[in-house]
Parts: sequence; structure tokens; C-alpha cells
Amino acid sequence: MGTQKEQIVSPLAPAGGFPELPPIKGVRFAATAAGVRYQGRNDVMLAELAPGTAVAGVFTRSATRAAPVLDCQAKLGGDTSAGAAIIVNSGNANAFTGKNGQNAVDKVTGAVAEALGLPRARVFSASTGVIGEPLPHERITAKIAELAAGLAPDRLKDAAEAIMTTDTFPKGASARVGGVTISGFAKGSGMIAPDMATMLVYIFTDAKIAQPLLQQVLSELTDVTFNAITVDSDTSTSDSLLLCATGAADAEEITAANIGPFRDALHGVMLDLAHQVVRDGEGATKFVEVRVTGAASDADARKVAMATANSPLVKTAIAGEDPNWGRVVMAVGKSGAAADRDRLSIRFGDILVAENGWVAESYSEAAGAAYMKQQELVIGIDLGLGDGKSTVWTCDLTHRYIEINADYRS
Amino acid sequence: MGTQKEQIVSPLAPAGGFPELPPIKGVRFAATAAGVRYQGRNDVMLAELAPGTAVAGVFTRSATRAAPVLDCQAKLGGDTSAGAAIIVNSGNANAFTGKNGQNAVDKVTGAVAEALGLPRARVFSASTGVIGEPLPHERITAKIAELAAGLAPDRLKDAAEAIMTTDTFPKGASARVGGVTISGFAKGSGMIAPDMATMLVYIFTDAKIAQPLLQQVLSELTDVTFNAITVDSDTSTSDSLLLCATGAADAEEITAANIGPFRDALHGVMLDLAHQVVRDGEGATKFVEVRVTGAASDADARKVAMATANSPLVKTAIAGEDPNWGRVVMAVGKSGAAADRDRLSIRFGDILVAENGWVAESYSEAAGAAYMKQQELVIGIDLGLGDGKSTVWTCDLTHRYIEINADYRS
Repeated sequence: MGTQKEQIVSPLAPAGGFPELPPIKGVRFAATAAGVRYQGRNDVMLAELAPGTAVAGVFTRSATRAAPVLDCQAKLGGDTSAGAAIIVNSGNANAFTGKNGQNAVDKVTGAVAEALGLPRARVFSASTGVIGEPLPHERITAKIAELAAGLAPDRLKDAAEAIMTTDTFPKGASARVGGVTISGFAKGSGMIAPDMATMLVYIFTDAKIAQPLLQQVLSELTDVTFNAITVDSDTSTSDSLLLCATGAADAEEITAANIGPFRDALHGVMLDLAHQVVRDGEGATKFVEVRVTGAASDADARKVAMATANSPLVKTAIAGEDPNWGRVVMAVGKSGAAADRDRLSIRFGDILVAENGWVAESYSEAAGAAYMKQQELVIGIDLGLGDGKSTVWTCDLTHRYIEINADYRS
Repeated sequence: MGTQKEQIVSPLAPAGGFPELPPIKGVRFAATAAGVRYQGRNDVMLAELAPGTAVAGVFTRSATRAAPVLDCQAKLGGDTSAGAAIIVNSGNANAFTGKNGQNAVDKVTGAVAEALGLPRARVFSASTGVIGEPLPHERITAKIAELAAGLAPDRLKDAAEAIMTTDTFPKGASARVGGVTISGFAKGSGMIAPDMATMLVYIFTDAKIAQPLLQQVLSELTDVTFNAITVDSDTSTSDSLLLCATGAADAEEITAANIGPFRDALHGVMLDLAHQVVRDGEGATKFVEVRVTGAASDADARKVAMATANSPLVKTAIAGEDPNWGRVVMAVGKSGAAADRDRLSIRFGDILVAENGWVAESYSEAAGAAYMKQQELVIGIDLGLGDGKSTVWTCDLTHRYIEINADYRS
């Protein structure tokens, strides 16, 4: 598996390929091939963060979180004076490995700490790949000296590629705002497949910003980016997102008073990366925005958006290019949100499909069918009840998803 | 669609075909071809219920319920002295049809009321099929006289067949207990496809039982039967279950004090019909029981069971005969229920797969793989926390599901 499997790049991949990611003052990267599971490719990345770097994080809410996730959560918010590091491997998730799990984390983060002269409490780690098999940590620790020697500010693409599993393309995004730079990369191609397709995201900036504020803005923006995407409704045991601010830029410190432009730029980077994860959704052929308005509350809007985006019947209709608005009505109905059949209106792009509890007079099946042939779709749902709104992004459900997830043996 | 599509009987269909359903004293059935949408097959069924018949019902919780559902809900619990009737058509769901919806219900139930000499308030109806198109009620009302003339106690199979849509076989079950008889039939092959695959269930008994007690036992048993099955996590706008007790049997009245045996027999009939709906799940090749024990509460156990049964990754693994217990760990983790990775144990049938936060020492991948080749599977999950338990039933997610739901145009 993995290296043996044909890797066709997703038809929804960004046209320009991996973007040129500007280096971030205070961060150096390295990657190497440790042979954790894959052969003939890099599978470990190391990032070194300068002293004073603030690290914020968000993680899977799964009750069966993997050992590296629990370890990272415990390490957030510690003393930043010594600097920090991040080490990530692909090929093995070190998840559901019993007491071996934390032991392997300690071995790997301990080796990095020693090589870089850091306290172990400042070395964050993540693992992604097959679960239930002990992590061969000695293959990683054997490569730490090589990784440390190879650290360079411009190796972001190497790092992004080393953490890929079922991904069909590496994912990167960046922004510059008010004298600071943000560069990030991600991996993920199902919302999860515990074997292979966990979502990992690493974002770096040279902005100077206190850890509590960094954590706050990260948590807020995660709700409208990475927590607003869904491929298959399943949730990884290893999802991790770290945001690291070195403070090395020659720019004013970011505070609650002046955070607006930085927040917007970070939002853009996070949304771009989140969309790229959906665009690499297993078997995806359509990129779909579900835009809900007029709900009784934002929470209700979110319920409707997620019920629609996760509905197998809606997702298969999209795969079949079927303007099946009845399935959208069904998804609204099952969502648990307040809804009134006779106030509901549905749009495919700009086409009004249904209103007043029935198909719109102006709607033609031909127009709906033509719209569904596009690769990027917007499903608009207005509940006609209040001001609540929510937007989420998903992809279609195709034969290829079944092939990827059923037609191979782990 | 419908008649044009190849109908291969599900490989999970009961071996013996449709069972011999004993007639119920006080109930007569008829069916005919009204050409609502399908050609060359019966598509309307009529059931006539003797004076005194108590009618209990449970319905979809969808916020976008179809007009016949709202009409039925309003009619439950009325005066039983005049008798009652049920009229059901396939081919058109009369759902999301605006003000035409209730008008069509009134026309159809009015015609039945007139033909059988009943108040319209005692005529229950349901419609299943395509949504968003006005019900051609005149095609149905034109056949009411013929239906009334054709009523006979032994036409249960005709009735069961007339309400089929994407079903690949009609579904029936019966029981006798303490001098009373229970006979029922159902249709349904997705948890829902709003176009075609709503679940409708009609159960009849000659027991004498007051309507409030009948309603109570029906609601309780629905939780552990029809509400404990899932094909694709989607919920119909039209799901309806009616339970009708004529009181015509020469047997003691059923009261709260003596209901035990009747309750058990009814449970058996309902579970049998619910399992048949799963066995006709769109594209199903495996019948799967998910049995959760040791949860902190029954509600938590239900969350874990449903998260597992609805997980696309679990369902595709089952389709691929892959003993992928890691996906079960994932589903437990995402369920929202209290869970402790290190107390969790997982079984495939009698095979202990994982315990103490890791794969079981006694487990072999070969044994797991051999087990997964069976057509009927039991996934056992013990959370090791308390006494909460829940069992649900589902099927696998296959290419055929995608074909049925994506590869045709409505």
C-alpha cells in the first residue's frame, strides 16, 4: 500500500501546483527518508523554531486520540525562551498502540531535544499513517542528526511533501501583511482515514504575538476553516494544527487592538489550506460550497450545512451531476435545526430552484442539470427564519471513494 | 426510472421469499394499478379497518415532513367507532408540493371516506416516490370504487407489493400469541432516498387494546427496531408506521398488566421487518449488527453504535471484507460518547480483536480476514466504563449504492 498504489493527482488540485512559500524568519526545515513504512520518499520532517516562538494548537476532539496528540496538548503554552521544534512522520500514526505510544513519542522528541539543545517539553510531534502498529521510533531517531544538519529556511516544500500519505498533491499557502509573513502547509485527503488520511497543518509566521492571543485567533478561525470542511463525516484520531509565531519580523507587536489585518491574512491562509484538503478529498470530482442563511441561529445554520454536506444522498447526486434538490430538502429536514418547509428556498449557484414549499416557477430542470456539470458548485439554502448563517465546504461521493476505502486490504 | 431499472433481488433477502401472512379479523385489503408513475404494476393499496379499531403511529421527525405525514399525525387518537382506512400510493411522495400537498391528501382521503362510509378524519394516507411533483390524485380517486370492490382479508401480499419503490423484495412478518394474531408488511431500501426509498410500515392485529397503550408500546418498540437501523444515515420526509388493533379476536383485552407476551410478539414482528429493510439496503452485500456494551449510559452506547454503523469508512471496509478495526476505534472516538482508549475492547463475532488500548495478543489478521468474508457480521464494542448498551443494524457501503444514487438522473 502507499507506494504501490497509483497516485492520480486530484482533478480539483490547484492549477499552479505547489506555491512558492516565503521563508519565515526564525524557522528552519528539513526532511528525509527514514523508511518508517514507505520506501523511496521522504517520510519525516523537522521544523526548528527560534527562541521566543509562541506555539498555539488545535487538535482532534476524538475520545481515542493518538499518543502524539495527547503529548502536544500537554506541551502547549509552556515557556518559550528556549525555542521549540516540530517533528512529524508519515507511514505510521502511532495511534492505538497502548503504552508503546507515549514511549515512542518520548524517544523521538527526546532525540530531537538533544540534537537541538531544547527541553523535551518544547518538542512537538505528530504521526500519520497506519494505526495499531508500534511506531518504529529507532528508524526516526537514527535520522535526527542528519535532519538537524539539513535544516534550512527555504525547505518548506520538502517538509510539506514528507508528511503526505494518501494525498495526491502537497498543500501550501502564504500571505504577507503589515511587514509580517505567514506560510503554511497541510496534508489530508479524507476528513480522515485512520489508516492514512489524517489532517495535519503547520503554519508559521514571523509576527510577534503573545501565545494566549495567538491561541484565541487560531481557535476562532479554525471554526470557520478546518472545522467547516468535511469529506466523509469521519474524524481522525490524530488531526493536529500548530501555529507558530517567531516574533522575528521587524514589525509592531500584534495585540488585540491591531490584530484585524493579521487575522484576515491568517484566515485567508487557513481557508486556502482547508479548501485544498477538500480538493484532495478521496475520489472527489466536485468542490462544493454549502451556504446556509436565514436560520434561527448560527448553530442551526451549521447543523443544516453539515447535514447537507455529509449526506450520502446529496453527495452521490452531485457525483451524478443530478440537480436533485429533493435531497437537499431531505437534508434540511433531518438536520435537527428549526425549519419551515414553506419558507425554505434553495439555489444552485444563482439559479432559484425551490421556494414557498415547492419548486420555483422560474426553475427549469435543464438549467439545473447544466449547472451541475460544473466542477465548482454552490448550494444555497435560505431557511427564511432569522439571521443565522454558516458556510461549509465538501466534495462529492464517488466510485473512487469506495475503491480507495473498500477495494484494498490494509 | 423505476420500471426501467433492472431489479436484482438483494443477496441478503430472506431465503424463503414473502412469508404466508395470516389474515387479521377486521381488516380487508385491496391493491390496483392506478398509473401514478409506474406502468404495469400495482401502485395503490387500500386497507379497511373494522369499527372500533385503535390506530397508533410513529412518523419521521424530519422538519420537512410531507403533507400525508402531517395529515396522519393530526388524525391519530380520534374516535374509533366508525372504523378506519389506510390508502397508500407509490411513485409519487406528495412531498414538497406546497399547498397542492394537503389538497391532494384531502381529495384522496375524501374519496375513500365516501366509498367506505367513513369520516374523512378516519382515513389515513401515505405517498412514496418522487418528490416535488404534484400528486396526480385524480388517477387514484378514479380507482377507489374498484379498490373498495376488491377488498378481501387475504390480500396482504398484494398490498405489500403495491407500495414498493426501489425495494428489491416485498417484506412481511407475522406472529401469533395468546389467541391473537399480528401481521405486518413494510417497504424501504435506503434509510431513505427522498425520490424513492422512504420506509413505510403497516402492522395489523386482532388484539383488543386501548389506543393509548397501543401507542405507548409502539413508541417503545420503535426505538429498538425501526429507529435502530440505518442504511445511509439519511432520513425520509415521509417515513410512517401505523399499528392497527381491531379487537376482533376472541381473546382477553390486553392491558398494562398482561401485555408482556403481546409486546414480545410485536417486538419480534417489528424487528423482523426492520431487519428486512436493512437487508434490502441499497447495494447491500453484508448484514451487520453493531453491539455496544459497557458504555457510561444507554444514550452513550447508542451514540457509539450509530457513529460506527453510519461511518463511511467502517462501511466501505466491510464492503471490502477488510478487518479494519482501526476504523472502529475512529468511530468510537468521534461519537461524542465517553470513551477511554485503554479500556476499549473490540470483537468481530467471537474474535477478540483489540483490548487495553492495543491489538489483542491472541488476534491474527488471518482470522479477522476470514471472519469478514461472512455475509452476516457482528461488531462488538465494549467501552469498559459502565452498564450502558445498545444494538443497531446496518449494511455495507458498496459501488452499487453509488450506482443507484449517482448513476441515474431523476
